[in-house]
Amino acid sequence: MSSEPVPLRPTVRRADRARQVADILRQQIHSGGIEGALPSEQELSTEFAVSRNTVRDALALLKDEGLIERAPKVGTHVARRKYDHGLDALLGLKEAMRGHGEVRNEVRAAHRLIPPPAVARKLRLEPGQHAVYIERLRWFGELPLSLDLTYLVPDIGDRILTRDLETNDVFALIEEISGGRLGSADLALEAITADAHSAMNLQLPEGGALLLLERLTELEDGRPVDLEYIRMRGDRITMRGSLTRPPERTDWRLT
Amino acid sequence: MSSEPVPLRPTVRRADRARQVADILRQQIHSGGIEGALPSEQELSTEFAVSRNTVRDALALLKDEGLIERAPKVGTHVARRKYDHGLDALLGLKEAMRGHGEVRNEVRAAHRLIPPPAVARKLRLEPGQHAVYIERLRWFGELPLSLDLTYLVPDIGDRILTRDLETNDVFALIEEISGGRLGSADLALEAITADAHSAMNLQLPEGGALLLLERLTELEDGRPVDLEYIRMRGDRITMRGSLTRPPERTDWRLT
Repeated sequence: MSSEPVPLRPTVRRADRARQVADILRQQIHSGGIEGALPSEQELSTEFAVSRNTVRDALALLKDEGLIERAPKVGTHVARRKYDHGLDALLGLKEAMRGHGEVRNEVRAAHRLIPPPAVARKLRLEPGQHAVYIERLRWFGELPLSLDLTYLVPDIGDRILTRDLETNDVFALIEEISGGRLGSADLALEAITADAHSAMNLQLPEGGALLLLERLTELEDGRPVDLEYIRMRGDRITMRGSLTRPPERTDWRLT
Repeated sequence: MSSEPVPLRPTVRRADRARQVADILRQQIHSGGIEGALPSEQELSTEFAVSRNTVRDALALLKDEGLIERAPKVGTHVARRKYDHGLDALLGLKEAMRGHGEVRNEVRAAHRLIPPPAVARKLRLEPGQHAVYIERLRWFGELPLSLDLTYLVPDIGDRILTRDLETNDVFALIEEISGGRLGSADLALEAITADAHSAMNLQLPEGGALLLLERLTELEDGRPVDLEYIRMRGDRITMRGSLTRPPERTDWRLT
Protein backbone atom coordinates (compact mmCIF):
# COMPACT_ATOMS: atom_id res chain seq x y z
CA MET A 1 0.00 0.00 0.00
CA SER A 2 2.97 2.29 0.47
CA SER A 3 3.21 2.68 -3.31
CA GLU A 4 -0.01 4.72 -3.34
CA PRO A 5 0.35 8.49 -3.44
CA VAL A 6 0.87 9.93 0.01
CA PRO A 7 -0.73 13.26 0.86
CA LEU A 8 2.17 15.04 2.45
CA ARG A 9 0.62 18.39 3.15
CA PRO A 10 -2.93 17.98 4.30
CA THR A 11 -4.79 21.11 5.22
CA VAL A 12 -4.08 21.62 8.88
CA ARG A 13 -3.68 24.82 10.77
CA ARG A 14 -0.24 26.14 11.54
CA ALA A 15 -0.89 25.92 15.30
CA ASP A 16 -1.65 22.22 14.92
CA ARG A 17 1.53 21.63 12.96
CA ALA A 18 3.54 23.64 15.49
CA ARG A 19 2.20 21.42 18.29
CA GLN A 20 3.25 18.31 16.38
CA VAL A 21 6.76 19.65 15.92
CA ALA A 22 7.04 20.86 19.52
CA ASP A 23 6.00 17.49 20.95
CA ILE A 24 8.67 15.63 19.02
CA LEU A 25 11.41 18.18 19.78
CA ARG A 26 10.47 18.14 23.48
CA GLN A 27 11.03 14.42 23.74
CA GLN A 28 14.28 14.65 21.77
CA ILE A 29 15.50 17.20 24.31
CA HIS A 30 14.39 15.06 27.27
CA SER A 31 16.04 11.96 25.88
CA GLY A 32 19.31 13.77 25.22
CA GLY A 33 18.88 13.36 21.46
CA ILE A 34 19.27 17.14 21.31
CA GLU A 35 21.82 18.74 23.62
CA GLY A 36 23.18 22.27 23.64
CA ALA A 37 22.33 24.04 20.40
CA LEU A 38 19.24 23.12 18.41
CA PRO A 39 19.41 22.76 14.62
CA SER A 40 18.74 25.97 12.70
CA GLU A 41 15.22 27.01 11.75
CA GLN A 42 16.02 26.05 8.17
CA GLU A 43 17.23 22.60 9.18
CA LEU A 44 14.20 22.01 11.37
CA SER A 45 11.95 23.23 8.57
CA THR A 46 13.45 20.59 6.27
CA GLU A 47 13.45 17.83 8.89
CA PHE A 48 9.80 18.31 9.78
CA ALA A 49 8.65 19.33 6.28
CA VAL A 50 6.96 22.46 7.62
CA SER A 51 7.38 26.19 7.00
CA ARG A 52 9.88 28.28 8.95
CA ASN A 53 6.94 30.10 10.51
CA THR A 54 5.67 26.80 11.87
CA VAL A 55 9.15 26.03 13.23
CA ARG A 56 9.19 29.44 14.94
CA ASP A 57 5.78 28.75 16.49
CA ALA A 58 6.96 25.37 17.75
CA LEU A 59 10.10 26.89 19.26
CA ALA A 60 7.96 29.60 20.90
CA LEU A 61 5.92 26.87 22.63
CA LEU A 62 9.06 25.23 24.01
CA LYS A 63 10.45 28.62 25.04
CA ASP A 64 7.24 29.36 26.97
CA GLU A 65 7.71 26.07 28.81
CA GLY A 66 11.21 27.17 29.78
CA LEU A 67 12.75 24.28 27.90
CA ILE A 68 14.80 26.29 25.42
CA GLU A 69 16.34 29.76 25.19
CA ARG A 70 16.46 31.83 22.02
CA ALA A 71 18.63 34.88 21.41
CA PRO A 72 19.62 36.76 18.29
CA LYS A 73 22.94 35.60 16.83
CA VAL A 74 23.37 33.02 19.65
CA GLY A 75 20.56 30.89 18.28
CA THR A 76 18.44 28.35 20.13
CA HIS A 77 19.77 26.32 23.03
CA VAL A 78 18.46 23.78 25.48
CA ALA A 79 17.91 25.81 28.65
CA ARG A 80 17.08 23.16 31.10
CA ARG A 81 17.74 19.52 31.57
CA LYS A 82 14.78 17.54 32.83
CA TYR A 83 15.31 14.61 35.18
CA ASP A 84 13.46 11.33 35.16
CA HIS A 85 11.62 9.99 38.16
CA GLY A 86 10.62 6.36 37.86
CA LEU A 87 7.07 5.10 37.45
CA ASP A 88 8.35 1.51 37.40
CA ALA A 89 9.72 1.17 40.92
CA LEU A 90 9.10 2.88 44.22
CA LEU A 91 12.08 5.15 44.73
CA GLY A 92 12.89 8.17 46.83
CA LEU A 93 14.09 11.28 45.00
CA LYS A 94 17.68 10.81 46.11
CA GLU A 95 17.64 7.24 44.83
CA ALA A 96 16.06 8.35 41.55
CA MET A 97 18.73 11.00 41.05
CA ARG A 98 21.63 8.66 41.69
CA GLY A 99 24.20 9.10 39.01
CA HIS A 100 23.06 12.67 38.34
CA GLY A 101 24.25 14.35 41.54
CA GLU A 102 23.38 15.14 45.12
CA VAL A 103 19.95 15.94 46.50
CA ARG A 104 19.87 18.25 49.52
CA ASN A 105 16.76 18.76 51.63
CA GLU A 106 15.89 22.12 53.14
CA VAL A 107 13.80 21.10 56.16
CA ARG A 108 10.99 23.65 56.51
CA ALA A 109 9.14 21.80 59.27
CA ALA A 110 9.66 18.63 61.31
CA HIS A 111 7.37 18.07 64.30
CA ARG A 112 4.51 16.09 65.74
CA LEU A 113 0.92 17.06 65.13
CA ILE A 114 -2.58 15.69 65.54
CA PRO A 115 -3.38 14.95 61.90
CA PRO A 116 -6.70 15.84 60.26
CA PRO A 117 -9.15 12.90 60.30
CA ALA A 118 -8.62 12.17 56.59
CA VAL A 119 -4.88 11.72 57.16
CA ALA A 120 -5.43 9.69 60.34
CA ARG A 121 -7.72 7.31 58.42
CA LYS A 122 -5.18 6.76 55.64
CA LEU A 123 -2.43 6.04 58.18
CA ARG A 124 -4.86 3.93 60.29
CA LEU A 125 -4.29 6.03 63.39
CA GLU A 126 -6.70 6.21 66.33
CA PRO A 127 -8.52 9.53 66.76
CA GLY A 128 -6.28 11.84 68.76
CA GLN A 129 -3.13 9.80 68.07
CA HIS A 130 -0.29 11.98 66.88
CA ALA A 131 1.55 11.78 63.59
CA VAL A 132 4.86 13.30 62.54
CA TYR A 133 4.89 16.02 59.91
CA ILE A 134 7.92 16.85 57.81
CA GLU A 135 8.09 19.48 55.09
CA ARG A 136 11.09 19.65 52.81
CA LEU A 137 12.15 21.71 49.86
CA ARG A 138 14.34 19.40 47.84
CA TRP A 139 17.29 20.85 46.00
CA PHE A 140 19.35 19.37 43.24
CA GLY A 141 22.45 21.56 43.11
CA GLU A 142 21.10 25.10 42.79
CA LEU A 143 17.74 23.89 41.48
CA PRO A 144 14.69 23.44 43.68
CA LEU A 145 13.05 20.29 42.32
CA SER A 146 10.14 19.58 44.65
CA LEU A 147 8.28 20.59 47.78
CA ASP A 148 7.33 17.52 49.86
CA LEU A 149 4.75 17.37 52.66
CA THR A 150 5.08 14.13 54.63
CA TYR A 151 2.88 12.56 57.33
CA LEU A 152 4.38 9.59 59.20
CA VAL A 153 2.95 7.12 61.70
CA PRO A 154 4.19 7.98 65.23
CA ASP A 155 6.33 4.90 66.01
CA ILE A 156 8.49 5.43 62.93
CA GLY A 157 8.05 9.20 62.64
CA ASP A 158 9.26 9.96 66.17
CA ARG A 159 12.53 8.19 65.45
CA ILE A 160 12.90 9.82 62.05
CA LEU A 161 12.76 13.22 63.79
CA THR A 162 16.10 12.37 65.44
CA ARG A 163 17.82 11.57 62.15
CA ASP A 164 19.57 13.66 59.52
CA LEU A 165 16.75 14.81 57.29
CA GLU A 166 18.92 17.04 55.11
CA THR A 167 20.69 14.34 53.19
CA ASN A 168 18.51 11.23 53.56
CA ASP A 169 15.39 10.12 51.72
CA VAL A 170 12.52 9.43 54.12
CA PHE A 171 12.20 6.00 52.43
CA ALA A 172 15.76 5.08 53.43
CA LEU A 173 15.16 6.23 57.01
CA ILE A 174 11.91 4.25 57.30
CA GLU A 175 13.69 1.10 56.15
CA GLU A 176 16.62 1.70 58.48
CA ILE A 177 14.32 2.25 61.47
CA SER A 178 11.81 -0.51 60.71
CA GLY A 179 14.52 -2.97 59.73
CA GLY A 180 12.51 -4.10 56.72
CA ARG A 181 11.81 -3.08 53.16
CA LEU A 182 8.95 -0.90 52.07
CA GLY A 183 6.29 -2.82 50.18
CA SER A 184 4.24 -0.81 47.74
CA ALA A 185 2.60 2.59 47.37
CA ASP A 186 -0.63 3.95 45.96
CA LEU A 187 -0.11 6.95 43.70
CA ALA A 188 -2.32 9.71 42.39
CA LEU A 189 -0.60 12.01 39.94
CA GLU A 190 -2.05 15.22 38.54
CA ALA A 191 -1.05 18.46 36.85
CA ILE A 192 -1.88 21.74 38.61
CA THR A 193 -0.81 25.32 38.13
CA ALA A 194 1.43 26.65 40.88
CA ASP A 195 -0.16 29.01 43.39
CA ALA A 196 1.87 32.10 44.30
CA HIS A 197 3.35 30.68 47.49
CA SER A 198 4.36 27.28 46.10
CA ALA A 199 5.78 29.04 43.04
CA MET A 200 7.88 31.30 45.27
CA ASN A 201 9.27 28.36 47.21
CA LEU A 202 10.08 26.43 44.06
CA GLN A 203 11.42 29.55 42.28
CA LEU A 204 8.91 28.91 39.52
CA PRO A 205 6.99 31.65 37.69
CA GLU A 206 3.51 31.94 39.22
CA GLY A 207 1.13 29.86 37.13
CA GLY A 208 3.88 27.44 36.12
CA ALA A 209 2.86 23.80 35.92
CA LEU A 210 3.46 21.36 38.76
CA LEU A 211 3.20 17.60 38.92
CA LEU A 212 1.36 16.90 42.18
CA LEU A 213 1.84 13.39 43.53
CA GLU A 214 -0.10 11.93 46.44
CA ARG A 215 1.65 8.78 47.58
CA LEU A 216 0.62 6.45 50.41
CA THR A 217 3.42 4.00 51.14
CA GLU A 218 3.15 0.72 53.04
CA LEU A 219 5.63 -1.56 54.72
CA GLU A 220 5.96 -5.06 53.31
CA ASP A 221 3.37 -6.27 55.85
CA GLY A 222 0.80 -3.91 54.34
CA ARG A 223 0.76 -1.31 57.10
CA PRO A 224 0.58 2.26 55.70
CA VAL A 225 3.31 4.38 57.29
CA ASP A 226 3.99 7.36 55.05
CA LEU A 227 1.55 9.74 53.31
CA GLU A 228 3.14 12.36 51.08
CA TYR A 229 2.03 15.27 48.94
CA ILE A 230 4.82 16.08 46.53
CA ARG A 231 4.91 19.10 44.23
CA MET A 232 7.44 18.60 41.44
CA ARG A 233 8.41 21.37 39.04
CA GLY A 234 6.89 20.47 35.69
CA ASP A 235 9.87 21.93 33.87
CA ARG A 236 12.36 19.82 35.82
CA ILE A 237 10.83 16.37 36.31
CA THR A 238 9.44 13.81 33.88
CA MET A 239 7.81 10.68 35.29
CA ARG A 240 8.92 7.75 33.16
CA GLY A 241 7.94 4.11 33.15
CA SER A 242 6.28 1.33 31.25
CA LEU A 243 2.88 -0.32 31.33
CA THR A 244 1.76 -3.76 30.28
CA ARG A 245 -1.49 -4.59 28.57
CA PRO A 246 -3.77 -6.62 30.87
CA PRO A 247 -4.09 -10.19 29.56
CA GLU A 248 -7.87 -10.45 29.26
CA ARG A 249 -10.51 -7.93 28.45
CA THR A 250 -12.64 -9.02 31.38
CA ASP A 251 -9.82 -7.93 33.64
CA TRP A 252 -10.08 -4.25 32.69
CA ARG A 253 -10.45 -2.25 35.78
CA LEU A 254 -9.07 0.80 37.46
CA THR A 255 -7.39 0.62 40.81
CA MET B 1 6.13 8.04 73.30
CA SER B 2 2.64 9.26 72.53
CA SER B 3 2.22 10.31 76.17
CA GLU B 4 4.75 13.12 75.69
CA PRO B 5 3.36 16.60 75.09
CA VAL B 6 2.55 17.12 71.44
CA PRO B 7 3.17 20.55 69.93
CA LEU B 8 -0.08 21.10 68.08
CA ARG B 9 0.50 24.56 66.70
CA PRO B 10 4.04 24.96 65.56
CA THR B 11 4.97 28.25 64.02
CA VAL B 12 4.27 27.87 60.34
CA ARG B 13 3.06 30.41 57.88
CA ARG B 14 -0.58 30.55 56.95
CA ALA B 15 0.21 29.82 53.31
CA ASP B 16 1.97 26.63 54.35
CA ARG B 17 -0.98 25.54 56.48
CA ALA B 18 -3.40 26.39 53.67
CA ARG B 19 -1.41 24.16 51.31
CA GLN B 20 -1.60 21.29 53.79
CA VAL B 21 -5.36 21.65 54.09
CA ALA B 22 -5.88 22.03 50.33
CA ASP B 23 -3.87 18.89 49.54
CA ILE B 24 -5.99 16.74 51.85
CA LEU B 25 -9.30 18.23 50.69
CA ARG B 26 -8.28 17.78 47.06
CA GLN B 27 -7.79 14.05 47.51
CA GLN B 28 -11.03 13.74 49.48
CA ILE B 29 -12.84 15.32 46.55
CA HIS B 30 -11.08 13.05 44.03
CA SER B 31 -11.85 9.93 46.00
CA GLY B 32 -15.51 10.85 46.41
CA GLY B 33 -15.08 11.31 50.18
CA ILE B 34 -16.52 14.77 49.62
CA GLU B 35 -19.36 15.12 47.12
CA GLY B 36 -21.65 18.06 46.47
CA ALA B 37 -21.42 20.58 49.30
CA LEU B 38 -18.24 20.95 51.34
CA PRO B 39 -18.41 21.27 55.12
CA SER B 40 -18.71 24.84 56.39
CA GLU B 41 -15.65 26.99 57.03
CA GLN B 42 -16.24 26.54 60.75
CA GLU B 43 -16.42 22.76 60.44
CA LEU B 44 -13.28 22.64 58.31
CA SER B 45 -11.55 24.94 60.77
CA THR B 46 -12.31 22.47 63.57
CA GLU B 47 -11.48 19.38 61.51
CA PHE B 48 -8.07 20.68 60.45
CA ALA B 49 -7.35 22.64 63.66
CA VAL B 50 -6.56 25.79 61.72
CA SER B 51 -8.03 29.31 61.64
CA ARG B 52 -10.95 30.20 59.40
CA ASN B 53 -8.61 32.46 57.45
CA THR B 54 -6.43 29.45 56.70
CA VAL B 55 -9.51 27.50 55.59
CA ARG B 56 -10.46 30.36 53.28
CA ASP B 57 -6.96 30.39 51.79
CA ALA B 58 -7.11 26.64 51.23
CA LEU B 59 -10.50 26.90 49.52
CA ALA B 60 -9.17 29.73 47.36
CA LEU B 61 -6.39 27.43 46.12
CA LEU B 62 -8.91 24.74 45.14
CA LYS B 63 -11.16 27.33 43.53
CA ASP B 64 -8.24 28.57 41.41
CA GLU B 65 -7.72 25.00 40.24
CA GLY B 66 -11.36 24.88 39.17
CA LEU B 67 -12.09 22.06 41.59
CA ILE B 68 -14.69 23.86 43.72
CA GLU B 69 -17.14 26.74 43.34
CA ARG B 70 -17.93 29.26 46.03
CA ALA B 71 -20.90 31.62 46.13
CA PRO B 72 -22.47 33.73 48.88
CA LYS B 73 -25.38 31.94 50.60
CA VAL B 74 -24.96 28.89 48.34
CA GLY B 75 -21.70 27.91 50.03
CA THR B 76 -18.90 25.78 48.63
CA HIS B 77 -19.53 22.93 46.20
CA VAL B 78 -17.49 20.45 44.23
CA ALA B 79 -17.43 21.92 40.72
CA ARG B 80 -15.85 19.19 38.78
CA ARG B 81 -15.43 15.49 39.05
CA LYS B 82 -12.01 14.20 38.11
CA TYR B 83 -11.62 10.87 36.37
CA ASP B 84 -8.94 8.30 36.97
CA HIS B 85 -6.70 6.98 34.22
CA GLY B 86 -4.73 3.91 35.19
CA LEU B 87 -1.00 3.75 35.71
CA ASP B 88 -1.23 0.04 36.48
CA ALA B 89 -2.36 -1.34 33.14
CA LEU B 90 -2.14 -0.18 29.55
CA LEU B 91 -5.63 1.04 28.69
CA GLY B 92 -7.18 3.26 26.08
CA LEU B 93 -9.27 6.18 27.31
CA LYS B 94 -12.55 4.53 26.42
CA GLU B 95 -11.56 1.43 28.36
CA ALA B 96 -10.43 3.52 31.32
CA MET B 97 -13.76 5.38 31.39
CA ARG B 98 -15.86 2.24 31.27
CA GLY B 99 -18.52 2.46 33.89
CA HIS B 100 -18.47 6.27 33.84
CA GLY B 101 -19.98 6.91 30.42
CA GLU B 102 -19.25 7.19 26.73
CA VAL B 103 -16.16 8.65 25.13
CA ARG B 104 -16.63 10.27 21.73
CA ASN B 105 -13.73 11.22 19.47
CA GLU B 106 -13.79 14.34 17.32
CA VAL B 107 -11.42 13.38 14.52
CA ARG B 108 -9.42 16.50 13.61
CA ALA B 109 -7.07 14.75 11.21
CA ALA B 110 -6.61 11.25 9.81
CA HIS B 111 -4.18 10.79 6.93
CA ARG B 112 -0.85 9.45 5.79
CA LEU B 113 2.32 11.47 6.11
CA ILE B 114 6.06 11.09 5.88
CA PRO B 115 6.94 11.32 9.56
CA PRO B 116 9.83 13.40 10.89
CA PRO B 117 13.00 11.31 11.35
CA ALA B 118 12.60 11.16 15.16
CA VAL B 119 9.15 9.59 14.77
CA ALA B 120 10.33 7.22 12.05
CA ARG B 121 13.14 6.01 14.31
CA LYS B 122 10.79 5.31 17.21
CA LEU B 123 8.42 3.36 14.94
CA ARG B 124 11.40 1.67 13.21
CA LEU B 125 10.35 2.88 9.77
CA GLU B 126 12.68 3.18 6.81
CA PRO B 127 13.52 6.73 5.69
CA GLY B 128 10.78 7.89 3.32
CA GLN B 129 8.31 5.22 4.47
CA HIS B 130 4.95 6.71 5.33
CA ALA B 131 3.13 6.63 8.65
CA VAL B 132 -0.49 7.33 9.47
CA TYR B 133 -1.34 10.39 11.54
CA ILE B 134 -4.55 10.71 13.54
CA GLU B 135 -5.51 13.67 15.70
CA ARG B 136 -8.51 13.41 17.98
CA LEU B 137 -10.17 15.63 20.52
CA ARG B 138 -11.70 13.23 23.01
CA TRP B 139 -15.00 14.13 24.61
CA PHE B 140 -16.63 12.67 27.64
CA GLY B 141 -20.22 13.88 27.45
CA GLU B 142 -19.91 17.65 27.04
CA LEU B 143 -16.38 17.72 28.47
CA PRO B 144 -13.26 17.72 26.33
CA LEU B 145 -10.84 15.47 28.21
CA SER B 146 -7.80 15.17 25.99
CA LEU B 147 -6.19 16.04 22.68
CA ASP B 148 -4.37 13.03 21.21
CA LEU B 149 -1.77 13.07 18.41
CA THR B 150 -1.14 9.56 17.09
CA TYR B 151 1.48 8.18 14.68
CA LEU B 152 0.93 4.61 13.46
CA VAL B 153 3.04 2.21 11.42
CA PRO B 154 1.72 1.99 7.83
CA ASP B 155 0.54 -1.64 7.69
CA ILE B 156 -1.75 -1.15 10.67
CA GLY B 157 -2.41 2.57 10.24
CA ASP B 158 -3.66 2.27 6.66
CA ARG B 159 -6.32 -0.18 7.79
CA ILE B 160 -7.25 1.90 10.83
CA LEU B 161 -8.01 4.81 8.48
CA THR B 162 -10.92 2.76 7.09
CA ARG B 163 -12.45 2.15 10.53
CA ASP B 164 -14.79 4.12 12.75
CA LEU B 165 -12.46 6.43 14.66
CA GLU B 166 -15.22 8.33 16.43
CA THR B 167 -16.23 5.65 18.88
CA ASN B 168 -13.26 3.27 19.04
CA ASP B 169 -10.00 3.45 20.98
CA VAL B 170 -6.99 3.13 18.68
CA PHE B 171 -5.77 0.33 20.97
CA ALA B 172 -8.90 -1.73 20.27
CA LEU B 173 -8.54 -1.16 16.51
CA ILE B 174 -4.86 -2.16 16.52
CA GLU B 175 -5.72 -5.41 18.29
CA GLU B 176 -8.62 -6.11 15.96
CA ILE B 177 -6.50 -5.51 12.86
CA SER B 178 -3.34 -7.24 14.06
CA GLY B 179 -5.27 -10.15 15.55
CA GLY B 180 -3.11 -10.07 18.69
CA ARG B 181 -2.83 -8.24 21.95
CA LEU B 182 -0.74 -5.18 22.56
CA GLY B 183 2.28 -5.90 24.70
CA SER B 184 3.65 -2.97 26.66
CA ALA B 185 4.26 0.76 26.33
CA ASP B 186 6.95 3.21 27.36
CA LEU B 187 5.55 6.31 29.04
CA ALA B 188 6.87 9.78 29.74
CA LEU B 189 4.50 11.94 31.76
CA GLU B 190 4.96 15.62 32.49
CA ALA B 191 3.06 18.71 33.56
CA ILE B 192 2.99 21.68 31.17
CA THR B 193 0.95 24.86 30.99
CA ALA B 194 -1.50 24.96 28.11
CA ASP B 195 -0.58 27.14 25.17
CA ALA B 196 -3.35 29.32 23.73
CA HIS B 197 -4.29 26.98 20.90
CA SER B 198 -4.35 23.77 22.94
CA ALA B 199 -6.30 25.59 25.66
CA MET B 200 -8.88 26.71 23.10
CA ASN B 201 -9.34 23.19 21.78
CA LEU B 202 -9.67 21.74 25.26
CA GLN B 203 -11.86 24.64 26.45
CA LEU B 204 -9.37 25.26 29.21
CA PRO B 205 -8.34 28.71 30.43
CA GLU B 206 -5.04 29.69 28.79
CA GLY B 207 -2.23 28.80 31.17
CA GLY B 208 -4.22 25.94 32.71
CA ALA B 209 -2.23 22.83 33.56
CA LEU B 210 -2.03 19.82 31.24
CA LEU B 211 -0.72 16.33 31.81
CA LEU B 212 1.31 15.55 28.69
CA LEU B 213 1.87 11.87 28.03
CA GLU B 214 4.23 10.49 25.41
CA ARG B 215 3.46 6.82 24.92
CA LEU B 216 5.17 4.36 22.56
CA THR B 217 3.19 1.14 22.38
CA GLU B 218 4.41 -2.24 21.14
CA LEU B 219 2.71 -5.38 19.99
CA GLU B 220 3.35 -8.50 22.05
CA ASP B 221 6.22 -9.41 19.71
CA GLY B 222 7.99 -6.18 20.69
CA ARG B 223 7.38 -4.24 17.47
CA PRO B 224 6.52 -0.57 18.16
CA VAL B 225 3.35 0.36 16.26
CA ASP B 226 1.81 3.41 17.93
CA LEU B 227 3.43 6.65 19.12
CA GLU B 228 1.12 9.11 20.86
CA TYR B 229 1.32 12.56 22.36
CA ILE B 230 -1.66 13.00 24.66
CA ARG B 231 -2.64 16.26 26.36
CA MET B 232 -5.01 15.62 29.26
CA ARG B 233 -6.79 18.40 31.12
CA GLY B 234 -5.17 18.62 34.53
CA ASP B 235 -8.49 19.50 36.12
CA ARG B 236 -10.25 16.45 34.66
CA ILE B 237 -7.79 13.55 34.81
CA THR B 238 -5.80 12.00 37.63
CA MET B 239 -3.33 9.24 36.81
CA ARG B 240 -3.62 6.58 39.47
CA GLY B 241 -1.68 3.43 40.15
CA SER B 242 0.63 1.61 42.50
CA LEU B 243 4.36 1.01 42.64
CA THR B 244 6.36 -1.73 44.28
CA ARG B 245 9.66 -1.27 46.04
CA PRO B 246 12.47 -2.97 44.10
CA PRO B 247 13.73 -5.98 46.10
CA GLU B 248 17.41 -5.12 46.32
CA ARG B 249 19.23 -1.85 46.53
CA THR B 250 21.65 -2.90 43.83
CA ASP B 251 18.68 -3.09 41.49
CA TRP B 252 17.87 0.60 41.67
CA ARG B 253 17.71 1.98 38.24
CA LEU B 254 15.64 4.22 36.06
CA THR B 255 14.18 3.07 32.81
